[in-house]
Amino acid sequence: MALTLAQLNAAPEAEALHLLDGLYEHSPWIAEKALAARPFASLAQLKHAMVQVLAAADRAAQVALVCAHPELAGKAMEAGRLTAESTTEQKAAGLTQCLPAELQRIRELNAAYLAKFGFPFVLAVRGPRGTGLAKQVILATYERRLLNHPDFELAEALRNIHRIAEIRLNDLFGYQPELGNLVWDWQEALSVHTDPGYAELGQLTVTYLTDAHRACAARIAADMRGCGFDEVAIDAVGNVVGRYFGTTPDAKYLMTGSHYDTVRNGGKYDGRLGIFVPMACVRELSRQGRRLPFGFEVVGFAEEEGQRYKATFLGSGALIGHFDPAWLEQQDADGITMRAAMAHAGLKPEDIPAIRRDPAAYLGFVEVHIEQGPVLNELDLPLGIVTSINGSVRYVGEVFGMASHAGTTPMDRRRDAATAVAELALYVERRAAQDGDSVGTMGMLQVPNGSINVVPGACRFSLDLRAPVNNQRDALADDVLGELRAICERRGLRCTLEETMRAAAAPSAPAWQQRWERAVSALGVPLYRMPSGAGHDAMKLHEVMPQAMLFVRGLNSGISHNPLESTTNDDMQLAVDAFLHLLNDLATEAR
Amino acid sequence: MALTLAQLNAAPEAEALHLLDGLYEHSPWIAEKALAARPFASLAQLKHAMVQVLAAADRAAQVALVCAHPELAGKAMEAGRLTAESTTEQKAAGLTQCLPAELQRIRELNAAYLAKFGFPFVLAVRGPRGTGLAKQVILATYERRLLNHPDFELAEALRNIHRIAEIRLNDLFGYQPELGNLVWDWQEALSVHTDPGYAELGQLTVTYLTDAHRACAARIAADMRGCGFDEVAIDAVGNVVGRYFGTTPDAKYLMTGSHYDTVRNGGKYDGRLGIFVPMACVRELSRQGRRLPFGFEVVGFAEEEGQRYKATFLGSGALIGHFDPAWLEQQDADGITMRAAMAHAGLKPEDIPAIRRDPAAYLGFVEVHIEQGPVLNELDLPLGIVTSINGSVRYVGEVFGMASHAGTTPMDRRRDAATAVAELALYVERRAAQDGDSVGTMGMLQVPNGSINVVPGACRFSLDLRAPVNNQRDALADDVLGELRAICERRGLRCTLEETMRAAAAPSAPAWQQRWERAVSALGVPLYRMPSGAGHDAMKLHEVMPQAMLFVRGLNSGISHNPLESTTNDDMQLAVDAFLHLLNDLATEAR
Repeated sequence: MALTLAQLNAAPEAEALHLLDGLYEHSPWIAEKALAARPFASLAQLKHAMVQVLAAADRAAQVALVCAHPELAGKAMEAGRLTAESTTEQKAAGLTQCLPAELQRIRELNAAYLAKFGFPFVLAVRGPRGTGLAKQVILATYERRLLNHPDFELAEALRNIHRIAEIRLNDLFGYQPELGNLVWDWQEALSVHTDPGYAELGQLTVTYLTDAHRACAARIAADMRGCGFDEVAIDAVGNVVGRYFGTTPDAKYLMTGSHYDTVRNGGKYDGRLGIFVPMACVRELSRQGRRLPFGFEVVGFAEEEGQRYKATFLGSGALIGHFDPAWLEQQDADGITMRAAMAHAGLKPEDIPAIRRDPAAYLGFVEVHIEQGPVLNELDLPLGIVTSINGSVRYVGEVFGMASHAGTTPMDRRRDAATAVAELALYVERRAAQDGDSVGTMGMLQVPNGSINVVPGACRFSLDLRAPVNNQRDALADDVLGELRAICERRGLRCTLEETMRAAAAPSAPAWQQRWERAVSALGVPLYRMPSGAGHDAMKLHEVMPQAMLFVRGLNSGISHNPLESTTNDDMQLAVDAFLHLLNDLATEAR
Repeated sequence: MALTLAQLNAAPEAEALHLLDGLYEHSPWIAEKALAARPFASLAQLKHAMVQVLAAADRAAQVALVCAHPELAGKAMEAGRLTAESTTEQKAAGLTQCLPAELQRIRELNAAYLAKFGFPFVLAVRGPRGTGLAKQVILATYERRLLNHPDFELAEALRNIHRIAEIRLNDLFGYQPELGNLVWDWQEALSVHTDPGYAELGQLTVTYLTDAHRACAARIAADMRGCGFDEVAIDAVGNVVGRYFGTTPDAKYLMTGSHYDTVRNGGKYDGRLGIFVPMACVRELSRQGRRLPFGFEVVGFAEEEGQRYKATFLGSGALIGHFDPAWLEQQDADGITMRAAMAHAGLKPEDIPAIRRDPAAYLGFVEVHIEQGPVLNELDLPLGIVTSINGSVRYVGEVFGMASHAGTTPMDRRRDAATAVAELALYVERRAAQDGDSVGTMGMLQVPNGSINVVPGACRFSLDLRAPVNNQRDALADDVLGELRAICERRGLRCTLEETMRAAAAPSAPAWQQRWERAVSALGVPLYRMPSGAGHDAMKLHEVMPQAMLFVRGLNSGISHNPLESTTNDDMQLAVDAFLHLLNDLATEAR
């Protein structure tokens, strides 16, 4: 009954077009142009071909496509004039059963959206397993997207249209991303655990060794056992460690994993995706009864975010011997020491030194992580190859000028601390952009006790500078600091600057990066190489063994450390597929 | 015994130079060059000639002059190697009787200052009537000036050297600025009254109708009576009104005055100088038994600063019928209504309408005020002619972008609200400077809840734009708002902007401005015309009669609304002299 790729690839052009009917609302031209790229090796490749067609179209054609979509819960739905596909989707989200007040609100939002942007609001409302977005989420998304810039919103509408097409295409091919759905379900189940105080707010917060954190560890351990791991244990810092033995007891191990703690009011995929994706691989290997010529160790790291205590990377750090016993006396906001928290969790700090790994026993470390940035989302690419975890340096500073009367101090006699910092902010923006892959951010900026009628006598700021290699980061920092000095000299100001953090870059091991590249290419997904701007557990393992990371696209501009962090079951499936490919590849090499 | 200007003007060159020996420490070249400008019509003219010589000298000569000065309480003092003049001055400040710990601290500060700037710390420590600065003030000045930029500090040292020379010159000519000293004493006596809570901190705060405020009114009224005013009364809003009758009962009046309330922790000259300077004139007229062909009305306005209640210009506003009875129900921070405060002070709000003046009964309004800005101080000029009280407009705004991860969001995919505001800040600075006499200030600037590793998703700011005429202000505002829109459009951001205040410009009446100009020129002081960036009581009177203002130099870069606000008895004397000249001029015109 369902279509196959072989059929599609073999069909005459008109028939092939007919087979793809209805993917893009009233817009067969997209499929038509994409079909020129036949044969397709994978659904992912077909999907991407259509993405490329739309990206190459002019703005008028893009807007026309958006306009071809019905409003959510709009007149077309009421009049029964929706396409079959749209009917299914709007029904899944419960939009066909709105209360009158809900309908009224949606109509107001539809009108406001149309008035601002000139095209209707398009949102992929259907989720995995035929579920739909909750009406509250839909309403909140309306409100949020109404604030966007028109250019951004057009791109966001097109991204949603591609997601709608992807789901319709899966239906057409009778395809279910089963392991992606499994990962999805694990994610959902794990995210019910949240620290006291946040549960009431509906927020996800899991900090080191709270009851919710312990519940997460127990849940992951139980799910690991369900996957067929040979050995599952919670170690002395709270890492959940699952081992899937190799064909021989003396085989080296491949280590993977990521963290299961979260920031306060964070997203559910940050860290956890890197535990569940390899778990799904083990489940698949186990289901097939396959053993690899190497052991596979999946670690759910207990702590990476540094939310409860000032120490970060407690989980991965402990595996390379970086646990400082002095940390045990650190207190959280309630005065509970780490030592007391560990005792409460039944962990024995004295056992921590023993969990340090012998690098000689490992092939290397790989980590899957949600991108936490907008790049893959904007490029409509599901996966990205990490080339390096950026080195970074952070500063906090303050420029001091002369506070003076805003009315009586002529422009040429001012010593305005804020305009000096403004100059620096723009320099950082320009200078970081020059490198292409450096980033520079002034995240904190404030005139302390500023008044509307006083020329700022002081201005505080922070700097966060990152680059894929240390030399590049240092050159950036040198230039920025030099510019700060030059600005202060030119404007007759003084400044203070304190370096608060410095982390070395962790370039991917070429052989391991290439394994990810081969895996992604094999899926028919275009290769995209990018640095990781954020720090990850892989940075720690990098110090003792080769490592490389794979990024998974995040929706909503890749927002992270935020409840809006999101990805799809289809992208999760691609991550599992890529990981399985890497394991197979490595198995072939080992033989 | 004392030298006269006539002697100096007539003396052969070498003798003249000898007469001026010791004015500038070990640096006779300054007097020598200045003498080329003989004859001098006034001491002020001679002083300014020397200022000009030093201003024209190159930096090396300026630094050499500073280096010719002994350190305060330094080795030269201990070894008895100071010049006679320096000995007198250091003694007046009690530096010859320092405790060992004080000496030690001063030596440390001397060393730190010399190390930073390469020249010794120079401070005019001798005040009026042979008094000296308190040691605490000297130490605080050291600490403050150590933070200055070297260019600024060289200029500040030269200004102090000019002040030292001025005092030495007065000694040489046996000249005492008697009316300036009188104003000085009145200022000092008035500043002992301060609101509860501020007295303990040694801070000056006098807000509307507090006990300290009433004590000030009583004190000013008493001093007015002592000057020979014919009529002194406190009116229904608390203004202290003194009238010095003209030669005929039906003569029109010239009104002058300024406010006696202060901001919190303010300076002692802001407002009050404009009451005391004309009081000194009346005292002089009365002493001479002179009557003018017009009446002279000096008003100490009760309220201008808007500190206790939200209404401002209560004193001058009431005289033009701008007292809104609704204000009576406003509450201060302690919940005391203005009505209750007036009752406590014995004032009757029902009498306020009756104090409205009939403009036909007045020639005009003039006001003396400390500059509250750096211009005269930097130009080494004692007096300035106000051309207009600037029109102003204020806004508060916020730019919204997209908060995102500082590490993972590439530079070309950011929607950074703070760099957008930084662009605006620099545009405001550049655009206001273009006009020459406009000013534009972003006094408040903040990334709300900014984090070091988050690209700012929002940035709040304020704008304060002023110009001497309304059209110029409006053109400035149009350009700034247009630039804000363009920045947001280009960067894909949105913004909000709220106008919070708009005040019309009050250009000086040409005839009255010319009277001030003639008065200042007659003193041998160079004319300097400038707009007033700050609002003044004259803005209110401007609505019903011609007005013009005279500015008096403020020390410490003209700092105001600050305890460091300061001026000298010599400058106060020049203000009194100028005012007397204006009165005489007007009397001549009237006859």
